[in-house]
Amino acid sequence: MTPSFDLAYLTDLAREAGRIALDWFRHTTVEMKSDATPVTQADKAIERFLTAKLRQAYPDFGILGEEGADLDERARFRWVLDPIDGTNAFAAGLPVWGISIGLMEGARPLAGVVYLPAVDDMFAVDLDGPATLNGHPIHVIEDGPITSESIILSAADAHLRWDIRFPGKVRAFGSCAAHICYVAAGSALAGLNSHTAIWDIAAALPILERAGGRAELFGGGALPLAAAARGQKIPEPILFGSPAYFDAIRGYLLPK
Amino acid sequence: MTPSFDLAYLTDLAREAGRIALDWFRHTTVEMKSDATPVTQADKAIERFLTAKLRQAYPDFGILGEEGADLDERARFRWVLDPIDGTNAFAAGLPVWGISIGLMEGARPLAGVVYLPAVDDMFAVDLDGPATLNGHPIHVIEDGPITSESIILSAADAHLRWDIRFPGKVRAFGSCAAHICYVAAGSALAGLNSHTAIWDIAAALPILERAGGRAELFGGGALPLAAAARGQKIPEPILFGSPAYFDAIRGYLLPK
Repeated sequence: MTPSFDLAYLTDLAREAGRIALDWFRHTTVEMKSDATPVTQADKAIERFLTAKLRQAYPDFGILGEEGADLDERARFRWVLDPIDGTNAFAAGLPVWGISIGLMEGARPLAGVVYLPAVDDMFAVDLDGPATLNGHPIHVIEDGPITSESIILSAADAHLRWDIRFPGKVRAFGSCAAHICYVAAGSALAGLNSHTAIWDIAAALPILERAGGRAELFGGGALPLAAAARGQKIPEPILFGSPAYFDAIRGYLLPK
Repeated sequence: MTPSFDLAYLTDLAREAGRIALDWFRHTTVEMKSDATPVTQADKAIERFLTAKLRQAYPDFGILGEEGADLDERARFRWVLDPIDGTNAFAAGLPVWGISIGLMEGARPLAGVVYLPAVDDMFAVDLDGPATLNGHPIHVIEDGPITSESIILSAADAHLRWDIRFPGKVRAFGSCAAHICYVAAGSALAGLNSHTAIWDIAAALPILERAGGRAELFGGGALPLAAAARGQKIPEPILFGSPAYFDAIRGYLLPK
């Protein structure tokens, strides 16, 4: 069965949520949650907004959100929301953070959008067809040498985890979903993330995969999506990009 | 003597240059220069544009640009241009890169603008008065503890130079001028840059200083601005932010 899914509705919704986010941007206050991660008024307002809208448009679908939304968890199709992926960057006034709306069937991410309001970059993927950035099909980098100009996108705590010998540039913007999408668009060779939750990847993974990429555990093997879909964080770092580079990237990262 | 300086003219000029940059963004080709750094058609087109406009508006001022402009080097006042600071990020399609237009008197940066077109963030400082971001006065972070949510902005090769023990987040966007400006705006505690040239800092330094911050050599001591103004790269990393944090930051970065 194919869910009734309207990508144009979803991109419009993400843009509307983006306007809410930009209203709060650079004048919000931050609280710390019980898991020691930050939350702002914007995260909560956007999750309420998306939940209400999606509930109305898709009454049969479940909803799981980073800020607590959890409706109809046994529904066959479920929206998985990160109202602001990159809350630390958002709260600091830095420009790369995103709104992520993914559609999952059980533990399988199907389609979705990742929208970066301060940059106005819209990544999207339908139930079939290519992943796009601002309407243009995107693709991962699949070949070519690794040079001093090559880029990997990494979590901001990578320096605590690895002795990094990568000969190119290690950039860190502060949003896992944005990192996966920029890798999908061929802006960087590969990326790494730690403490990954399902809402960080529910939309970004199908974007990556339809752009020719893949994500797997840093130590090798498929992501534990069933456990992640039940709300468990993925217990080890993930690596994403074209599998052609995975062995090389792993070789540059020596566990500390 | 105060030069005749018109900040509104300069911000308009930076926005116009930004439109040229965005026309090339995500469909440009990259060449490598003799110093092994990249250049695109956009870098060259913007430097030509800025040079022509500034030459016309300020015929008595010299001009020094990253892409080769060097006019009236002995003029008392000189525009120092980086048409695209963060060319590697620009060429990759990543969103944080900037146009930097600084005014120097001899080796002393006086005023300028740093504009990030893909983000639409305009940092500016006049010959006096506060530094601003999109018209609002900005200030560095001057106190408070360093926590797991604290941010430093760093060059993308920091992992090759230091064993980084910073307990917070190390982010790297790919533009030295942007990093200095976001530190000036209090988005991050401090920042680091290596291979710094005068065009990376000519506009960003007065923005930082008028926001309460300072830049110095990582090893301590004032930046060698006289040599930098003659075109020499600063031979060691620089550290910028509120001096209140400099000792702590140095303590987290162990030379490899």
